[in-house]
Amino acid sequence: MYFEHFFEPGLAQKSYLVGCQKTGEAIVIDPRRDVDVYLTAARDNDLRITKIAETHIHADFLSGSRELAAATGAEILASDEGGPDWQYRFAHTGLRDGDQIHVGNVRLDVMHTPGHTPEHISFILYDLPAGPAAMMAFTGDFVFVGDVGRPDLLEEAAGIKDTKIRGARDLWKSLRRFRELPQHVMVWPAHGAGSACGKALGAVPSSTVGYELATNWAFQIEDEETFVHELLDGQPEPPYYFAEMKVRNRAGAPVLGTVERPPLLGPRRIAELCGIAESHNAQSGERLESAQILDVRSQFAFAGAHIPGSISVPMDRSLSNWAGWTLDYDRPIALIAPDHQVSDVVDALIRIGLDTIVGYMPSVDGWIDEGLPVARVDQLTADELTAELDSDADKYHVIDVRSRSEFDEGHIDGAVNIHAGRLTRLADQIPRGRPLLVHCQSGYRSIIAVSSLERLGIGPVVNLIGGYGAYVDASPASQATTSR
Amino acid sequence: MYFEHFFEPGLAQKSYLVGCQKTGEAIVIDPRRDVDVYLTAARDNDLRITKIAETHIHADFLSGSRELAAATGAEILASDEGGPDWQYRFAHTGLRDGDQIHVGNVRLDVMHTPGHTPEHISFILYDLPAGPAAMMAFTGDFVFVGDVGRPDLLEEAAGIKDTKIRGARDLWKSLRRFRELPQHVMVWPAHGAGSACGKALGAVPSSTVGYELATNWAFQIEDEETFVHELLDGQPEPPYYFAEMKVRNRAGAPVLGTVERPPLLGPRRIAELCGIAESHNAQSGERLESAQILDVRSQFAFAGAHIPGSISVPMDRSLSNWAGWTLDYDRPIALIAPDHQVSDVVDALIRIGLDTIVGYMPSVDGWIDEGLPVARVDQLTADELTAELDSDADKYHVIDVRSRSEFDEGHIDGAVNIHAGRLTRLADQIPRGRPLLVHCQSGYRSIIAVSSLERLGIGPVVNLIGGYGAYVDASPASQATTSR
Amino acid sequence: MYFEHFFEPGLAQKSYLVGCQKTGEAIVIDPRRDVDVYLTAARDNDLRITKIAETHIHADFLSGSRELAAATGAEILASDEGGPDWQYRFAHTGLRDGDQIHVGNVRLDVMHTPGHTPEHISFILYDLPAGPAAMMAFTGDFVFVGDVGRPDLLEEAAGIKDTKIRGARDLWKSLRRFRELPQHVMVWPAHGAGSACGKALGAVPSSTVGYELATNWAFQIEDEETFVHELLDGQPEPPYYFAEMKVRNRAGAPVLGTVERPPLLGPRRIAELCGIAESHNAQSGERLESAQILDVRSQFAFAGAHIPGSISVPMDRSLSNWAGWTLDYDRPIALIAPDHQVSDVVDALIRIGLDTIVGYMPSVDGWIDEGLPVARVDQLTADELTAELDSDADKYHVIDVRSRSEFDEGHIDGAVNIHAGRLTRLADQIPRGRPLLVHCQSGYRSIIAVSSLERLGIGPVVNLIGGYGAYVDASPASQATTSR
Amino acid sequence: MYFEHFFEPGLAQKSYLVGCQKTGEAIVIDPRRDVDVYLTAARDNDLRITKIAETHIHADFLSGSRELAAATGAEILASDEGGPDWQYRFAHTGLRDGDQIHVGNVRLDVMHTPGHTPEHISFILYDLPAGPAAMMAFTGDFVFVGDVGRPDLLEEAAGIKDTKIRGARDLWKSLRRFRELPQHVMVWPAHGAGSACGKALGAVPSSTVGYELATNWAFQIEDEETFVHELLDGQPEPPYYFAEMKVRNRAGAPVLGTVERPPLLGPRRIAELCGIAESHNAQSGERLESAQILDVRSQFAFAGAHIPGSISVPMDRSLSNWAGWTLDYDRPIALIAPDHQVSDVVDALIRIGLDTIVGYMPSVDGWIDEGLPVARVDQLTADELTAELDSDADKYHVIDVRSRSEFDEGHIDGAVNIHAGRLTRLADQIPRGRPLLVHCQSGYRSIIAVSSLERLGIGPVVNLIGGYGAYVDASPASQATTSR
Repeated sequence: MYFEHFFEPGLAQKSYLVGCQKTGEAIVIDPRRDVDVYLTAARDNDLRITKIAETHIHADFLSGSRELAAATGAEILASDEGGPDWQYRFAHTGLRDGDQIHVGNVRLDVMHTPGHTPEHISFILYDLPAGPAAMMAFTGDFVFVGDVGRPDLLEEAAGIKDTKIRGARDLWKSLRRFRELPQHVMVWPAHGAGSACGKALGAVPSSTVGYELATNWAFQIEDEETFVHELLDGQPEPPYYFAEMKVRNRAGAPVLGTVERPPLLGPRRIAELCGIAESHNAQSGERLESAQILDVRSQFAFAGAHIPGSISVPMDRSLSNWAGWTLDYDRPIALIAPDHQVSDVVDALIRIGLDTIVGYMPSVDGWIDEGLPVARVDQLTADELTAELDSDADKYHVIDVRSRSEFDEGHIDGAVNIHAGRLTRLADQIPRGRPLLVHCQSGYRSIIAVSSLERLGIGPVVNLIGGYGAYVDASPASQATTSR
Repeated sequence: MYFEHFFEPGLAQKSYLVGCQKTGEAIVIDPRRDVDVYLTAARDNDLRITKIAETHIHADFLSGSRELAAATGAEILASDEGGPDWQYRFAHTGLRDGDQIHVGNVRLDVMHTPGHTPEHISFILYDLPAGPAAMMAFTGDFVFVGDVGRPDLLEEAAGIKDTKIRGARDLWKSLRRFRELPQHVMVWPAHGAGSACGKALGAVPSSTVGYELATNWAFQIEDEETFVHELLDGQPEPPYYFAEMKVRNRAGAPVLGTVERPPLLGPRRIAELCGIAESHNAQSGERLESAQILDVRSQFAFAGAHIPGSISVPMDRSLSNWAGWTLDYDRPIALIAPDHQVSDVVDALIRIGLDTIVGYMPSVDGWIDEGLPVARVDQLTADELTAELDSDADKYHVIDVRSRSEFDEGHIDGAVNIHAGRLTRLADQIPRGRPLLVHCQSGYRSIIAVSSLERLGIGPVVNLIGGYGAYVDASPASQATTSR
Repeated sequence: MYFEHFFEPGLAQKSYLVGCQKTGEAIVIDPRRDVDVYLTAARDNDLRITKIAETHIHADFLSGSRELAAATGAEILASDEGGPDWQYRFAHTGLRDGDQIHVGNVRLDVMHTPGHTPEHISFILYDLPAGPAAMMAFTGDFVFVGDVGRPDLLEEAAGIKDTKIRGARDLWKSLRRFRELPQHVMVWPAHGAGSACGKALGAVPSSTVGYELATNWAFQIEDEETFVHELLDGQPEPPYYFAEMKVRNRAGAPVLGTVERPPLLGPRRIAELCGIAESHNAQSGERLESAQILDVRSQFAFAGAHIPGSISVPMDRSLSNWAGWTLDYDRPIALIAPDHQVSDVVDALIRIGLDTIVGYMPSVDGWIDEGLPVARVDQLTADELTAELDSDADKYHVIDVRSRSEFDEGHIDGAVNIHAGRLTRLADQIPRGRPLLVHCQSGYRSIIAVSSLERLGIGPVVNLIGGYGAYVDASPASQATTSR
Repeated sequence: MYFEHFFEPGLAQKSYLVGCQKTGEAIVIDPRRDVDVYLTAARDNDLRITKIAETHIHADFLSGSRELAAATGAEILASDEGGPDWQYRFAHTGLRDGDQIHVGNVRLDVMHTPGHTPEHISFILYDLPAGPAAMMAFTGDFVFVGDVGRPDLLEEAAGIKDTKIRGARDLWKSLRRFRELPQHVMVWPAHGAGSACGKALGAVPSSTVGYELATNWAFQIEDEETFVHELLDGQPEPPYYFAEMKVRNRAGAPVLGTVERPPLLGPRRIAELCGIAESHNAQSGERLESAQILDVRSQFAFAGAHIPGSISVPMDRSLSNWAGWTLDYDRPIALIAPDHQVSDVVDALIRIGLDTIVGYMPSVDGWIDEGLPVARVDQLTADELTAELDSDADKYHVIDVRSRSEFDEGHIDGAVNIHAGRLTRLADQIPRGRPLLVHCQSGYRSIIAVSSLERLGIGPVVNLIGGYGAYVDASPASQATTSR
């Protein structure tokens, strides 16, 4: 048997290639949309991808199943469990609890494991020539290393009411079945550390049934009510784009074929596409009309100068996630990205279905030379902020854009907590009357937030360089005043 | 806890990085010699490599422990078990059964597991914040996925007499201790499929104690004598370089620092370095005097034209292995390798301690243009061979250079089996009196063998294009005459 | 003024970008078809390509004018001189003797310079801000460094009768006009050393009017008749594809847009596309039916093993030229080319209009593993040949595939001279009755010839490794017997 | 004859490879220090570099002659003219007016052409097989395309008194000799557009004697006094590092051998090397003690956040030049540069002898995370500045860091002109009492100036985004008030 695991760090997403070397057949489980990795691995190991399996309708990335099927002719296998609302709407071979998938001498048994979603299934793998013992479980978003899948995404992100309690109870029952698996079975989930799909994801790629029973918090709880309460408590904010993913994954993602590098565009062309008039009232933050600009340069470069109204998401592993929070699925995207990063940015965007990328410009130098409108961000170092607050503690409304849990561990006295991704939809919660001092933990998320505020036309805004981390380092005194 | 596993396919060698994200400390287990992969992984995950551990004195690759220690300042931890002959001879922190290694909040318990070698130890890992359950076992060459380490290398490769029976009995005892580990513990060995260190290595990267107990042949045997017999039966030929590795790994590998790309050399310079006179008796196969030439071009290009006396090992995952079989550790190496492969070839060579690479030449065109001596290989297609044998079955002595087990599954009638790597030392077993027809399974190993025969001055030699595979396809009739 | 010159060594083709930095306008003269180089240069120098000019209807490459116009919106300027048979058949702005082209502050004056072709024009450049002196002449295939354009291509390659004498007389007149230009004017032609468009092309990229008058052979001759005779004497063989280029360049090359890398194909798919049955009579040299295979591996690898009927043109600067000689414009092409060379091979092919590339396979290993038919080339080293000829001087018909001029400087006694490119159409000139010994100067062209003979089904054929050069080195005695 | 010209755009530096294909010998004229380009070109064209020639002791880059001689064994040929102060102090073959250099069938005649420097020589090339006519002149910094070499560098940059008038008179005499050359001779100088070695350099790579006589300003002047006056008038500021280059080129540049990529360093290590205490008074601009930091990120990123006291020179063709203005030759350099630019930055630095590069860090994120001191730049957009000046015209002292000639063409009312490179040595000319508003033309040079002011501890400083260009676009009204 051949086995390979693929980890995409941006979405902490995991997928698998399992093959039978005897027959040359192979299956891919939960493929991502940039499918070259599977094609290459199969080729290098003399395997043909003949089947593709999905554990569930994903919320955090656009499935690559249809893309991979188009490239290989493989059959798509997906759950028909979960009731009428949870049926895939594209051609596939339906799977139900107890079904068996054969890939040469490898067998995968289907186990219905609802909870995270109603239709969720897991696959229990047997390498038949080695003997009748179960070898691995592909658990999708059901059981992670050290955690279990959250059942509240539908309600939180997709706005489907009253599903999270029912999901939690379903999950309790599914976990009881999981306990029955042999202790030695390896557990390979659909996510690793960093995903928003669970609250305590470990950085170890796999585990075993026995180890999870011994250590995973979910198996230490003995009654259902406590479990339901614990499970639903303190889950991180699901990104807005999750709702979009649910709909698209059920409908079936469009097939891209070869993804071409977007063309290099000049400043005038970008301005046209984005409906930016050559006015000079750059700081007024007027909204762009047609294409939206995604600027992936560093937070420092964005602060130094940027195109008014552009969305800042500095290139980083978490680009997919923050692009999903901040970009508009209905508008084309123009990139500000250096040449050597364009391909990676495009991959990160198509992974979540942001496919319409009209072109890119490597910097804003040419834009400025053309006399097109430009904006900058007011900033303070932590030392400067400390000094200012020392002399006038009420100079700013402090907006802390970190997560609730980070905020709860300590924050600047008087700060208001609004998650960086949610800012655009929570404009009414932003206090007025003073300049806003925006910060996160280290400076990455605050620039995203600042660019959102600029688009909303709310200000003046001042960004804190280095975030709360730098603030704590800089101000031993004021740290004492932060609440806990 | 952070965990990453590194697979080097050429030697099927596996190494591990385990870190504690809380404290930033990390340990590498059984590092290979091109250590950049660990430095990069540590950097990308904000870890400092502070410890390096060895499971045993490796026979199949040169350890990177000293290289990595030189690059990071980390402490080397290695076994002091095994008796006076098995003590490492360079500075290290000695480990004994029951010792504990702490890497931040991760603990590794040392378990003495002799058998493959007398000093062999394994590490049982505990991720302390997750609870008191054991999580993983790093088993080195003790327990593989589906196999156990062979105890006969010392005797076979290093020529240390009477050790294999004792090793097999030690292994039996060590396996009894392994059975006591919890079933859920993950097993991460030092080798995957393709290594010569075990006889049935699987292509799955890891397993669990329980799955091995259920499926690994070694745990299905109930008495020691049967086990010893089974274990020692039918092991593949260990490459000659294994003896060299044992000595060097115990002494401590020299530290390379930055590995520079070898210089491009002209034909005249290569000829000088290799002591090739400008005589034209190219086909006479005279031995080179000083540097040896390693030609990594394809088997087809080598057959088309090559420098007389050069060693053919076409660039491929198994380059390290075949270079270890055929190159002389006491002579510098000149490469015939295209520009884009030079770095990979150098990496493959230094992994087994072939460090003295004096330069390279991308092709033999310039050599031929200079009028330097050139040789070619006589070849037949399978169709041609079939036709020839039909008219004269005794035209050739057929030398089948595959492994014994391949030979046993079917071979050309009358063929003599000599392993491709062993040819140079088994010249007296080669039949004389007719031209030699050399073949392997697909054509890769036979070119290595042909180049060895040329250096020995034995011939005439004819190479079969496509090997036994092509022969079987071409000659349905003659196939029937092959023995089983 | 901005000036950049682009040299494509494969076709020894030269093109030019001239821009006015004041206005940002630029013109490209005689662009090649892979137009990225112009787009990049223009972008890096803040220029917009607004005009494209052609000196004449090229015979040796497919013009990139239409490709570049499609990418930039620039206007194509081309000759309307030369009479009805020499009119471009696609949309362009016509130029006539005396016309002026303005590119910002740069002016190019059109000068009708027939001879090489009837419609040929040259451009005399003035950098107006620097003063009224002429600065450069873009002479196309009219005047080269040390040579003049040949007027016989139409007759030789395109089969248009009775044009070469008239062309030579036109050229004589055009040269008289050239003599009138100021001595200091720089001369930038459309070809450098290596092209088949002139007989004594220098390796210096540019010259001056005065230096050409002083040194170019064409200006040392004082009467027209001698000139005509000298000019038409001893011109190299024009490749067959020149006729194709003439027709296509007049009609207008198809616009490619983005050139995608052809897909990797498996052996079965290649076999299907090429209509290769899975028969084993590989050596029979049967013709492929649909796609043709171009194998760009080294001559040595091709000799070692290849797909029967494939065309060998080893990757090299001269790939375009030899592909033009040997490939069929009406059939799609499947490549045997290593991954790192695919893009360069594709560029070399589209430069001469071989656009239909259906896929590639990096080696023939997989082909052989599949049991598909395979062929090899019989070869001799120079030493071996010398020994054979010593014992039997009439063993072979020797086919010397070098150019006539190389042959005349010395050849193997009794050899027949047939240019490597012409072999496929001169099958009736090949002597029969003995095995053919094929050679060129160093071994590159002979493998092309050998692959042509294989396709013609003529044999047996033996290839000489290292060619005539190696033969002369190896056989001091036989050298004496060569003529000259 | 083989000819190739190499243009290094950063220094607008030109060098040449001339070879004789018959004998395989070649000469390089005025090599730069990253000599791989010559080695590669020679190899690709089957040439051996046997001679290296210098036209003069260069002021603007460190000569690669000794580097190339070390790599090839070639002989260095250099001027022994110019008197005792102008003698090279390393081993070389001395050249005097009238000497001849033979490179196979190519001959170069030495012509003493003082003016730019006293020892300056030019080379007149003859391609002997083509005939007795002179073909090319390598004129070094004597005659450029459209300009002549400035004779004032010694006085301006190297501080050698009373040399510029004498140099100008020498140049007048040398130009009279140049007039005697045949009109058709090509002129290939040592610099193209962009260098500081002449005042009107063209963007055309070469010219001819006749074209220069017709258009170059220097040949239009008929009397010596006018010429001397014109020549010395309005030359651009020579960078400070020119003095250093003169000394080092005469002494002989150290041989580097293989240039290794500097190591990646962590923030703590950079801080240690630069003597940065972990104090938080980041904005105080205290001077670093040991290593100096060169930050090549964009001007926008530097403005957003940077290490206090670091030198900003954004990566750009002109990096060598601005590094020469601002870096200290006596201190090691630590780089802030993204991975993909490190090699190019190192090349740019070693070209001017800044060889001691101790390491690099790709961004300042890690630095900030470590709580190390950080600084930012106060900035204004042109719109904001216009508004501010409208309400208070005296709010700032405006420092215009462009060249004198740019300043003279128009500037902000009341601005003081100090060249960006000279700021560090002209601190006493900077007006005090108000905040400084610093600007250049487009924003590149002003960030360099701002970083210099920060190191001098002068402030507060405000940087104008987009420079004077943006200001003029933004403020039609204020533009009217700029002087001419």
